[in-house]
Amino acid sequence: MKNHELLFGTAYYPEYMPYDRVAQDLDMMKKAGMNVVRIAESTWSTLEPRDGVFDFGYVDRVLEEAGRRGMKVIIGTPTYALPSWLVKKDPDVMVVTREGQARYGHRQLYDLWNPTFRFHAERVIRRLAEHTAGHPAVIGFQIDNETKHYGNDGEEVQKRFREYLRGKYGDTETFNRTFCLAYWSNSIDRWEDLPDMRGCVNGGLMGEYEAFKRRLAAGYLEWQAELIREYKREDQFITHNLDFEWKKFGADIAQDGYSYGVQPDMNHREAASCLDLAGTDIYHPTQDELTGAEIAFCGDAVRSLKQQSYLVLECQAQAFKYWTPYPGQLRLHAYSHLSSGAMGLLYWNWHSIHNGYETYWRGLLSHDLQENPAYREAAVIGKEWKEHGRELAGTKQPSRIALLVDNRSLEALRWFPIDRDLSYNDVVRWMYDSLYELNLECDVVDVEGLEEGRYDMIVTPALYCADENLIRRLDDFVQKGGVLVSSFRSFVADSHSTVYPDALPYGLTGCFGMSYQQFSEPGRTRLGGEPVSCFMELLKPDTAKTLAAYEHRYWGEYAGITGNHYGAGWAYYIGCYTSGPMLKEVYQEAAQRAGIRISELVWPVTVRNCMTSDGKALHYILHYSEEEREIPCPYLLAEDLLTGNIYKRGDRIHLRDWDVVILREEEDI
Amino acid sequence: MKNHELLFGTAYYPEYMPYDRVAQDLDMMKKAGMNVVRIAESTWSTLEPRDGVFDFGYVDRVLEEAGRRGMKVIIGTPTYALPSWLVKKDPDVMVVTREGQARYGHRQLYDLWNPTFRFHAERVIRRLAEHTAGHPAVIGFQIDNETKHYGNDGEEVQKRFREYLRGKYGDTETFNRTFCLAYWSNSIDRWEDLPDMRGCVNGGLMGEYEAFKRRLAAGYLEWQAELIREYKREDQFITHNLDFEWKKFGADIAQDGYSYGVQPDMNHREAASCLDLAGTDIYHPTQDELTGAEIAFCGDAVRSLKQQSYLVLECQAQAFKYWTPYPGQLRLHAYSHLSSGAMGLLYWNWHSIHNGYETYWRGLLSHDLQENPAYREAAVIGKEWKEHGRELAGTKQPSRIALLVDNRSLEALRWFPIDRDLSYNDVVRWMYDSLYELNLECDVVDVEGLEEGRYDMIVTPALYCADENLIRRLDDFVQKGGVLVSSFRSFVADSHSTVYPDALPYGLTGCFGMSYQQFSEPGRTRLGGEPVSCFMELLKPDTAKTLAAYEHRYWGEYAGITGNHYGAGWAYYIGCYTSGPMLKEVYQEAAQRAGIRISELVWPVTVRNCMTSDGKALHYILHYSEEEREIPCPYLLAEDLLTGNIYKRGDRIHLRDWDVVILREEEDI
Amino acid sequence: MKNHELLFGTAYYPEYMPYDRVAQDLDMMKKAGMNVVRIAESTWSTLEPRDGVFDFGYVDRVLEEAGRRGMKVIIGTPTYALPSWLVKKDPDVMVVTREGQARYGHRQLYDLWNPTFRFHAERVIRRLAEHTAGHPAVIGFQIDNETKHYGNDGEEVQKRFREYLRGKYGDTETFNRTFCLAYWSNSIDRWEDLPDMRGCVNGGLMGEYEAFKRRLAAGYLEWQAELIREYKREDQFITHNLDFEWKKFGADIAQDGYSYGVQPDMNHREAASCLDLAGTDIYHPTQDELTGAEIAFCGDAVRSLKQQSYLVLECQAQAFKYWTPYPGQLRLHAYSHLSSGAMGLLYWNWHSIHNGYETYWRGLLSHDLQENPAYREAAVIGKEWKEHGRELAGTKQPSRIALLVDNRSLEALRWFPIDRDLSYNDVVRWMYDSLYELNLECDVVDVEGLEEGRYDMIVTPALYCADENLIRRLDDFVQKGGVLVSSFRSFVADSHSTVYPDALPYGLTGCFGMSYQQFSEPGRTRLGGEPVSCFMELLKPDTAKTLAAYEHRYWGEYAGITGNHYGAGWAYYIGCYTSGPMLKEVYQEAAQRAGIRISELVWPVTVRNCMTSDGKALHYILHYSEEEREIPCPYLLAEDLLTGNIYKRGDRIHLRDWDVVILREEEDI
Repeated sequence: MKNHELLFGTAYYPEYMPYDRVAQDLDMMKKAGMNVVRIAESTWSTLEPRDGVFDFGYVDRVLEEAGRRGMKVIIGTPTYALPSWLVKKDPDVMVVTREGQARYGHRQLYDLWNPTFRFHAERVIRRLAEHTAGHPAVIGFQIDNETKHYGNDGEEVQKRFREYLRGKYGDTETFNRTFCLAYWSNSIDRWEDLPDMRGCVNGGLMGEYEAFKRRLAAGYLEWQAELIREYKREDQFITHNLDFEWKKFGADIAQDGYSYGVQPDMNHREAASCLDLAGTDIYHPTQDELTGAEIAFCGDAVRSLKQQSYLVLECQAQAFKYWTPYPGQLRLHAYSHLSSGAMGLLYWNWHSIHNGYETYWRGLLSHDLQENPAYREAAVIGKEWKEHGRELAGTKQPSRIALLVDNRSLEALRWFPIDRDLSYNDVVRWMYDSLYELNLECDVVDVEGLEEGRYDMIVTPALYCADENLIRRLDDFVQKGGVLVSSFRSFVADSHSTVYPDALPYGLTGCFGMSYQQFSEPGRTRLGGEPVSCFMELLKPDTAKTLAAYEHRYWGEYAGITGNHYGAGWAYYIGCYTSGPMLKEVYQEAAQRAGIRISELVWPVTVRNCMTSDGKALHYILHYSEEEREIPCPYLLAEDLLTGNIYKRGDRIHLRDWDVVILREEEDI
Repeated sequence: MKNHELLFGTAYYPEYMPYDRVAQDLDMMKKAGMNVVRIAESTWSTLEPRDGVFDFGYVDRVLEEAGRRGMKVIIGTPTYALPSWLVKKDPDVMVVTREGQARYGHRQLYDLWNPTFRFHAERVIRRLAEHTAGHPAVIGFQIDNETKHYGNDGEEVQKRFREYLRGKYGDTETFNRTFCLAYWSNSIDRWEDLPDMRGCVNGGLMGEYEAFKRRLAAGYLEWQAELIREYKREDQFITHNLDFEWKKFGADIAQDGYSYGVQPDMNHREAASCLDLAGTDIYHPTQDELTGAEIAFCGDAVRSLKQQSYLVLECQAQAFKYWTPYPGQLRLHAYSHLSSGAMGLLYWNWHSIHNGYETYWRGLLSHDLQENPAYREAAVIGKEWKEHGRELAGTKQPSRIALLVDNRSLEALRWFPIDRDLSYNDVVRWMYDSLYELNLECDVVDVEGLEEGRYDMIVTPALYCADENLIRRLDDFVQKGGVLVSSFRSFVADSHSTVYPDALPYGLTGCFGMSYQQFSEPGRTRLGGEPVSCFMELLKPDTAKTLAAYEHRYWGEYAGITGNHYGAGWAYYIGCYTSGPMLKEVYQEAAQRAGIRISELVWPVTVRNCMTSDGKALHYILHYSEEEREIPCPYLLAEDLLTGNIYKRGDRIHLRDWDVVILREEEDI
Repeated sequence: MKNHELLFGTAYYPEYMPYDRVAQDLDMMKKAGMNVVRIAESTWSTLEPRDGVFDFGYVDRVLEEAGRRGMKVIIGTPTYALPSWLVKKDPDVMVVTREGQARYGHRQLYDLWNPTFRFHAERVIRRLAEHTAGHPAVIGFQIDNETKHYGNDGEEVQKRFREYLRGKYGDTETFNRTFCLAYWSNSIDRWEDLPDMRGCVNGGLMGEYEAFKRRLAAGYLEWQAELIREYKREDQFITHNLDFEWKKFGADIAQDGYSYGVQPDMNHREAASCLDLAGTDIYHPTQDELTGAEIAFCGDAVRSLKQQSYLVLECQAQAFKYWTPYPGQLRLHAYSHLSSGAMGLLYWNWHSIHNGYETYWRGLLSHDLQENPAYREAAVIGKEWKEHGRELAGTKQPSRIALLVDNRSLEALRWFPIDRDLSYNDVVRWMYDSLYELNLECDVVDVEGLEEGRYDMIVTPALYCADENLIRRLDDFVQKGGVLVSSFRSFVADSHSTVYPDALPYGLTGCFGMSYQQFSEPGRTRLGGEPVSCFMELLKPDTAKTLAAYEHRYWGEYAGITGNHYGAGWAYYIGCYTSGPMLKEVYQEAAQRAGIRISELVWPVTVRNCMTSDGKALHYILHYSEEEREIPCPYLLAEDLLTGNIYKRGDRIHLRDWDVVILREEEDI
């Protein structure tokens, strides 16, 4: 793709339309400034209505009409949803989980390793790729969609897992010892005696099993990528739509929830290894609950996978009734994605579906398929992006802070919960969101992908599982001048979730200058005058300074937050689940120690900084508020890209509700 | 039955009694003024203790003793609960549902279409009918009890459904298009590929499937009715006990809940077609929560089925601890049933059961089987009904308002919920209850049973599914002078739950003089100063007058309630879930436009009007309050049937707590 | 065991340890004053790593090291958790329940009656007993652990149950009548037609079935006891770890809940019959929620089984985060156990487990395996118990009050719940806890174990099932001068949960001098000015005095609490779920009538009285409060065993937070 163009478009399903509207739809898109559509993923039964009979008619139709209008197309492989003839042919293509074999109907619930599935998936992928790769409008392929392991506990997976364990641990005694399996007589003497994992209650072994299943799922994507590579042109990319942990809210309505945290059933780092371009979907609260935090978190995470620009393959237009956007919000969403490093976005989806599971996951068009307020606001975005694409595309977001995330810790803390109301991702978001609100930009880095020497400050939310090597690296990082900020439940167990039989935080009691032996429910404990909720470790400072001590008749002798000068660096430890403001105080001290400048602007005025491809400093000012306000220009001299207004340092910049200002710093006056 | 007699009695299960009490029980009933018992339903294992061995001894016993006392008997077919020998003989008589095959023990959970079941059911029904039809005490037969489809997903049902679809839609392409099955690759190319419906996630197709199952269940009743018709005398009726959606409250205690709204698993209109007499059970909150709304709603619905008097086959005596009646309440219940058009009532049941699932669904007698306060109050009712039966029996309740209900919309809104806290029946009851509280009497009419030209005002709560024909009829109704009052989520989709790809409310934007493209969670929106809860459509008036506009920073430009003069009539649309008072304001304007007089009395003084068989106007004044109060007599001259008091217009009528006054208008002074 | 020694120790699992620490651990225990460890239960896979291959190495190791240090060992049979090879050999060793066959992984979920299981269990028990019985350190054996029937609905159990019914009831007609099975056609004509109990909805029959399963589970313990008896020495005891109903709090975290009430799935009286020594585990809230009530309740119940000292085989050291003990609380726990008659206690467990289901059920040592505050407080206990063991061991706790508990009533009230928020055990604890808080000591006696003439006052919480014999005995008890205090829902049904068809409270309307026919949800009812919650019976006093009448417009004519002088005694009846203070008023009057002295001290100052083996009166003063306070010495002359302080009546005794004072009354000054 050309660096000076932003992608703006939508998922498009002409096969879901109540009548033929391809030309009309593409005209409307074009009119709204869109330049790309994603098609064909999840449409297997349309592409291959019966076993071996293919019909790419509607794909051709879109390619032709898009090509005619100079629009681009991303082709999705259709394997995300099976046709029913395949299940009739071999019922075992449906996944077997803890709850039994899935029934056909819902998407995704198939057995990725079933040979019948693989045979037919390969055939349809090859046919589709062969059919479309040559078309000039096609800029890339998306393999599958939101792939996960779907809780696969089938025989084949379990057999492979046993072989994997045998290969990794060799003898059963080592295996037993590694996971403490003597407990409740779960140790085995022969590998054949490994029981059905569906009954397993050993959190460590389940963590290993889940990690194994995530790797298998990533392997499935690699398999698809290799198939596509046989057909695609050099200039076409392979991407995938990575999704995040979905947070349901309230009761069980089909259509609720949002992108919240680390995906438990797929490791993004593993999944991304076979991709040219990281793609993602990001859904988030809006209306009065729009904060931008999810757009930032997910964007930072996906950008960090390859340390390069990514594509938002799906984001919300109208979706649920909760998310009907206020005027200005759709535009604010769009710039927020760019500000994290996105090269563009596609709505999910163009139109609202007239029947089916996601009828009320509304698209840009309502069910009437006519122009509406959402469409009209999209057209504003389309127009602006066409004008400013050259400057806004291809930016770099260099971050000096890394927030480490870890699938194993997530899984371990499901088995060994901190609290029923505090999951791993809650801690991740607690630590991330306070950074975000302080306008401290960070990468969100998988713990196994942490690069040596890249960051000045590292943040570890509940990094429960940490192997000796990582611990040595972090100790070294601080000794050499780095700043480490860790929360409670970090450095507790090894990568098998086996708690270290030693002082905690394991291997880092010197670094943090403190240790603890006990933890407690806070009860009436306070910290800095505020009640502590959920969980607290009883820290005993050694060389560390107590930044905050517990206020409690019995726990008053222990520290809640400590800071320690260690070697050339500093290590901060937050022993309990504090309020946001308390956490921010620690961050402010930590950032200062790390030599990172803290903006005077704070949320709801979000500032995201990047460098244009021309090397200019660009600052997104994203206003997450329905209030109007004025802020002083923080830069010596800057121009608002969108309005052309020029501001000098201290000049008042007026922000409307849900406003966007993009300041490009100018070097000379 | 004779027109001048009210039925008053009870379900009676001598076979559940701890010792022989038939003579004693019937004496007690007689003493309380009762004249009818219902027996034999659900007693198959007593009537046929082993395969082919019949014992009608206790039936004969009751017939003899009842006959001797001049009491009537309704014979129930016993098929509602299977004997265990039948399940041992063929385990497949138990229903197969989404959760697997039901286990024997609970009532009802059998496969209505299983041939073994049908063979044995036919045999016992024929034997029982043959045995009892000739007895002079027998006035009618109840076929089965509270019949529904029991979630039957058995192979036979699914096979029939596939044949039904093939017959209805012909080719799979039409079928796919009708339900938008291309979505998630659910389209099929051959009918054989139709997947197991238990995995289906297409709300429209599931709606079709549920409708099909309701029809099958109604067909089962027709089959029973035909069997009975071979034996019954001309003067004997066939009835069935139709029940309503059961609203559970609180946690899962066996004995809670009450009759709430439209029955999802049986269509009453279809079920009633084979009956001579509509029968029903109505259970409702009492004590401080007694409002009369359920008695009125269910009564109006059952009366509307055949536009004639119905029989309350079951209603509560004491039942749960929540419902131990206050003094006066049992009597108030009884008159409330009459005021809706009931020809009488039977308690469920005579005595409290000493062991079994419904031990604490207490009867008129407590477990001690002695006279108690409930019994003594029943005796008051018995006495009064004997005295006034001639005037109270055979009344007519002509209503000028129809409230339309629809099983398909109910099912569709399960799949496409308005809100987790707002079901279809919640909207039905919201619209019904405000009519009720204003003393605006209505019929509750199944949408497929709406008679042309019968009503002056039509109310449609969340009539989500509406076919083109119905829409044309309603448009025409308004054009010709009718008044239509519709709520949000009306006229959205066709009868397949496929949303119309056009402006909404579909086909009626002219009639309502407005349209909408978007809807939203209300958030902080207000309407008429009050917060809006759950759901709101953003109405854009065209010719309509805005009756209330949303109060909200962004939604303030849209209307929440509109009224439109269209042709000779008026159409009102309520775009959001408002408070009761706001809805009542709309009703008051609408009723006025329809020329319907509104009573000055409002709930808790309920007024229900009817015409005696002698053509006199009768007004039930039902006092749903523990307060005492005085009301002015609204009629020129009227006599209280129960006391003989004469009132002229404006005279003060004193109402005790939970009081009943029945005013018969007198023509000359 | 010697009478002058208290047992103090811990469960010990060297096989769960991350490295060999046996010598080091036992040194640490010894240093803390511990003299006993319990080993080997639940370690089958370690003792018999493959079918027929035994390895008692670690058992020998502990015996040797313990013996060397003069410490005692309790050997647990390992059958509580199966090795996976056994399940691979015969999958049917896993229990079949209502939910299907259990999967291997979790403890306990096996079929106690499976012959394969029995064969292998017998072999490993015999080998272990043979191997260890001769070792001088071994003081006793624990058979299995926390045994219950595990919801066993397997074919064998159901077959045995049918045989049992046939034996008990003879003909099916008696059987049908006993349980009112005609209801919903559940009666049978031949025993072969008895349906699968998993579908049964007859609460009475389910009660019978559950009782049968409890007896089978007790029989399994007898079988183990007989095996052990073939090997054990005369001086060695057989015990078992009896546990209580586990009350979960909050959502589903693996590690929460506490010992709450009567165990539903095992009858303690039946289970204890084959034991020499009753053993138990008692877990309870601590920190701010520490009241001592669970320690007292469970202790009183276990002591009452054999009317002798019992052993606390498991109690909490640190366990969950909720229970990290405050300074002083671990010591208070320990003395509280003694005060109920325990001969000592063992912590569960020594160390915190490093991986597995109970990783955060922390032991005395945290995961670092070093000394910590909990360990150091245990060492204080160890030291004091060594000094004062002679006086504190072998005490007697004679109680004049019996609180009757009943498994059948518990089960019946699951089927016929009083209220969704009020279970049988809630009523038990409501009645027990008020006794406890008044320092009225009682035995907690299984209704079938009530000894004639032992008590002066009997309390019956919700004794729903009571057979005629028991009722006659209680009537006789009162006539002869006893005092009976019964709650609502007592004396309602026979032992088949069949409600008596007669006036209630059945057979005791004379004794209580009142009866009732109706009950109600309280609604707005008050009693003594306080709102009544959940449930109330409408009592009609005859000879009884109304102690409190309901305050309510309609229920005001009924009594809520009555007292009656009957024969030489008194009978009190509490017809509704009152507040604690109202219940205590009744207790105070009742105790006075029974001639039982009521302490002036009340909780949080708990007083528990006993007699030393030397015949001296010993009074534990247990201070359940973080406040400091002074109390007057209630005894003429007494010495605090722990400090040697001497107090005369009225002297101020100072109580620190969570303090313990043990006053031995001295005879002469």
